[in-house]
Amino acid sequence: MTSLDDRVRPTVTTGPIQGSHKVYVDGPDGVRIPMRRVELTNGEHLDLYDTSGPYTDDTAVVDVQSGLSKLRESWVAERQPVNGAVTQLAYAKAGIITKEMAFCAAREGVDPEFVRSEVAIGRAVIPVNRKHPESEPAIIGKKFLVKINANMGNSAVSSSIEEEVDKMVWAARWGADTIMDLSTGKRIHETREWILRNSPVPIGTVPMYQALEKVGGDPTKLNWEIYRDTVIEQCEQGVDYMTVHAGVLLRYVPLTAKRVTGIVSRGGSIMAAWCLAHHTESFLYTHFEELCDILREYDVTFSLGDGLRPGSIADANDAAQFAELRTLGELTHIARAKDVQVMIEGPGHVPMHKIVENVRLEEELCGEAPFYTLGPLATDIAPAYDHITSAIGAAQIAWAGTAMLCYVTPKEHLGLPNRDDVKVGVITYKIAAHSADLAKGHPKAQERDDALSKARFEFRWTDQFNLSLDPDTARSFHDETLPAEPAKTAHFCSMCGPKFCSMRITQDVRKYAEEHNLSSVDAIEAGMAEMSAEFQAHGKQVYLPVVEG
Amino acid sequence: MTSLDDRVRPTVTTGPIQGSHKVYVDGPDGVRIPMRRVELTNGEHLDLYDTSGPYTDDTAVVDVQSGLSKLRESWVAERQPVNGAVTQLAYAKAGIITKEMAFCAAREGVDPEFVRSEVAIGRAVIPVNRKHPESEPAIIGKKFLVKINANMGNSAVSSSIEEEVDKMVWAARWGADTIMDLSTGKRIHETREWILRNSPVPIGTVPMYQALEKVGGDPTKLNWEIYRDTVIEQCEQGVDYMTVHAGVLLRYVPLTAKRVTGIVSRGGSIMAAWCLAHHTESFLYTHFEELCDILREYDVTFSLGDGLRPGSIADANDAAQFAELRTLGELTHIARAKDVQVMIEGPGHVPMHKIVENVRLEEELCGEAPFYTLGPLATDIAPAYDHITSAIGAAQIAWAGTAMLCYVTPKEHLGLPNRDDVKVGVITYKIAAHSADLAKGHPKAQERDDALSKARFEFRWTDQFNLSLDPDTARSFHDETLPAEPAKTAHFCSMCGPKFCSMRITQDVRKYAEEHNLSSVDAIEAGMAEMSAEFQAHGKQVYLPVVEG
Repeated sequence: MTSLDDRVRPTVTTGPIQGSHKVYVDGPDGVRIPMRRVELTNGEHLDLYDTSGPYTDDTAVVDVQSGLSKLRESWVAERQPVNGAVTQLAYAKAGIITKEMAFCAAREGVDPEFVRSEVAIGRAVIPVNRKHPESEPAIIGKKFLVKINANMGNSAVSSSIEEEVDKMVWAARWGADTIMDLSTGKRIHETREWILRNSPVPIGTVPMYQALEKVGGDPTKLNWEIYRDTVIEQCEQGVDYMTVHAGVLLRYVPLTAKRVTGIVSRGGSIMAAWCLAHHTESFLYTHFEELCDILREYDVTFSLGDGLRPGSIADANDAAQFAELRTLGELTHIARAKDVQVMIEGPGHVPMHKIVENVRLEEELCGEAPFYTLGPLATDIAPAYDHITSAIGAAQIAWAGTAMLCYVTPKEHLGLPNRDDVKVGVITYKIAAHSADLAKGHPKAQERDDALSKARFEFRWTDQFNLSLDPDTARSFHDETLPAEPAKTAHFCSMCGPKFCSMRITQDVRKYAEEHNLSSVDAIEAGMAEMSAEFQAHGKQVYLPVVEG
Repeated sequence: MTSLDDRVRPTVTTGPIQGSHKVYVDGPDGVRIPMRRVELTNGEHLDLYDTSGPYTDDTAVVDVQSGLSKLRESWVAERQPVNGAVTQLAYAKAGIITKEMAFCAAREGVDPEFVRSEVAIGRAVIPVNRKHPESEPAIIGKKFLVKINANMGNSAVSSSIEEEVDKMVWAARWGADTIMDLSTGKRIHETREWILRNSPVPIGTVPMYQALEKVGGDPTKLNWEIYRDTVIEQCEQGVDYMTVHAGVLLRYVPLTAKRVTGIVSRGGSIMAAWCLAHHTESFLYTHFEELCDILREYDVTFSLGDGLRPGSIADANDAAQFAELRTLGELTHIARAKDVQVMIEGPGHVPMHKIVENVRLEEELCGEAPFYTLGPLATDIAPAYDHITSAIGAAQIAWAGTAMLCYVTPKEHLGLPNRDDVKVGVITYKIAAHSADLAKGHPKAQERDDALSKARFEFRWTDQFNLSLDPDTARSFHDETLPAEPAKTAHFCSMCGPKFCSMRITQDVRKYAEEHNLSSVDAIEAGMAEMSAEFQAHGKQVYLPVVEG
């Protein structure tokens, strides 16, 4: 393992998120699950799924120079291969429930056997390179909570190792389930090493980017050997999943000729250029079985890239996109036969009425392999707001069955995201993912909505802030107009003022009706007269004039 | 007409939006349609639907003290009543195409007769009080472009007349099709007068708020006479549509008893309290026909309020909500029989899987009266980001048939929106509305997406900024990392850097394939070898090393 360059001095954000603290809940098979506990002012508490790692644990000692402790080191060490493989898929097929599966089951609140069975049929993946023991396992599949990925990494014109490590910790803090290091600039290997050794979440990469750097940025100079060696280098470092654009075939390239935006995937455009330059089929396709053998050794998960994804509304669901998807389906079955876990990447830019077709076709062609989509953006006309245009599409495609959503930040199409963009992107995608969990009827998803809405109705402002996805911003927005501490228990806010607060007025209606158990229409009719009389009596109290401030 | 208090000195934003200028296109029957023309660097231009009024017209003189010029004064004056009515609905039923209908038709690019027929059957409304001649008519209906409303207005604890007038002009500038003045604080009448005299878009109100102020904020003191006089006062001022919570019936109130968030509509909670206090049916319901007679005189449109809308995911689509909706359907038919235009207000907080049912039921019960929904929010857990949680629901409900979307700002649930919040809310809702226009297959909607994506692919950065919903922010985000002027034509941005720009790489692929007309698979096979050879030849050029930094 490369040692970390001590001239690099990242500073990362530590400490609990406002109003919560880290707890560890005992799970099956001795695993301990990190959760974020929100203590409520009414004495109750809610434990939330937590991706932030030790950085939010007051009791943990964080030293980025030496990296995180190796949670999974012993788990990996004490395991024997099955059928020559060490992948979660191989163990699942053999009926073995690994500690990673037990960990994911406890995290999701489901039965470990259910996790095993979903992994065994390839409908879920647990990206855990045995060389990345620092990571806390997460499961990605349509039957589980929708996950989100945050992209980072430098480019030739922007950012540093310090910035990227800080962004990684920052993204995990706010809820990123995985992180992709898409560095294409300087010191790609060192940047990745820093991220891997300090990341509590699985890390994904696109090995092609580093391979292209090795040949001076000239796609025509690429070849299988350089690419293979790059993949092995990254497997050894501990990368958990890799995007491979093996579905961009020579004969598909001209299908993009009449598109409004051609090929918008970096890896896709590189392979298209290579195929045309050599008039040869893609070496990623012709060497795919060798690639499977390498990934299986480390239990690295394939993220089969959609190199021909649409980059505009005009190009959505076209021949090029779906031709590639069919090839990805073919490759999925090859990888699974070799016990290698597989995800499938999806679009892109897709108008709402064409979103569901993407999921149905992916599930049909790729044997329900977890779908991992970028948005999609529901319109092209809002650069600087593409976290929103894409959240609209992301919520819908996740509801339809997408397992993981790749975030989009406000800087999409315009520049490299900074720290603030990363947070906005992550929070926006937590909203899309959670909205889908609700729509899919995930048993526990609505607990948080109900707890927050109950706090809202009871004017427990602090609880409302602390239960929200971003307590810091919720509180600061409220305090802009009502900063005084008494306002934290006031029965109104500056939006409506005291006399017009509907919740304040209706609390008495609700309380009364509950006391008199007015649930059926009969009971209602019977209770109305009495109800009315009582309201007459204490009506004035309900609407006491309030001193306005 | 009240004269404007000259101690009030609002300052409003004037001048064109970056990269565009106002043009007036001749329409049928002598009407002139304001459009926002974006001139592109390739010599083409695109004319966009424009709600901003004279404020973005360099040639117009703006004097808020005297108000806008009265575009519709002569239109109204030269018209005779039909069947005793002066409403757009009455004229439409009589087969008459008014200037307002002609104006809307030209604005939407449809046939005037189509506008008339949609208004005649009540599936579309044109809110135009004859006492608000300053407004530019807009049509609201599922067969037309999805519209958005921006709420403003002061509260007892925040804002001033100056701020509200500035927000109104600011909201219209960024695309608000209508504005609701929801003032509940001081000087309600004067604030509304200032907004009406200076607003180029239709103005809506909730008369109950002012009526409640007149009785010192005690709902039990309300009565029909005070409410009626308030409605007449607002009709005389020129309010174009009014929210009336006439569907909150005495027997429905207990249906909210077991809700997580009770009644969250201000008007709804006020009427619920009144009904219980007096054990009498709502005076809005019992006097509804008189109300119709008043609104018909001015051609004020009903916006039948959903006083029992759900305020949380837990309460969505419950008995209280749908009981009220049935009553709104009954009232819709009464109003239409009296030639009064009607819209129906909708939720609120609704998880994605329960959204479509709202539209289907509204259309069935209310004879397809235009649906006007608040969001809905797809989850409760993101205060400070509820413009996003609600845009997810808004895009879907608009796709399903909602005609107008009421925006939600980042301050929702937390405080009164400021100027910046208003802009974010408007832009976010333009995204949701446009996404729905695309999904509904509106013939002209995709023109803007295609123009922007083409500009993006051709690295016409300035055109990409100017075609976006918010050119100022798009440009500033780009310039954060690449401020130099040459970057405005550079074939990359800081996101990927020069060598990794997929669009740059694929432009040559596309150009070549187009030249050789490689559209069919046969042509592809035939052309590949030649294609490959040529790529070999000039391949190096395509990937010339670029000076970075």
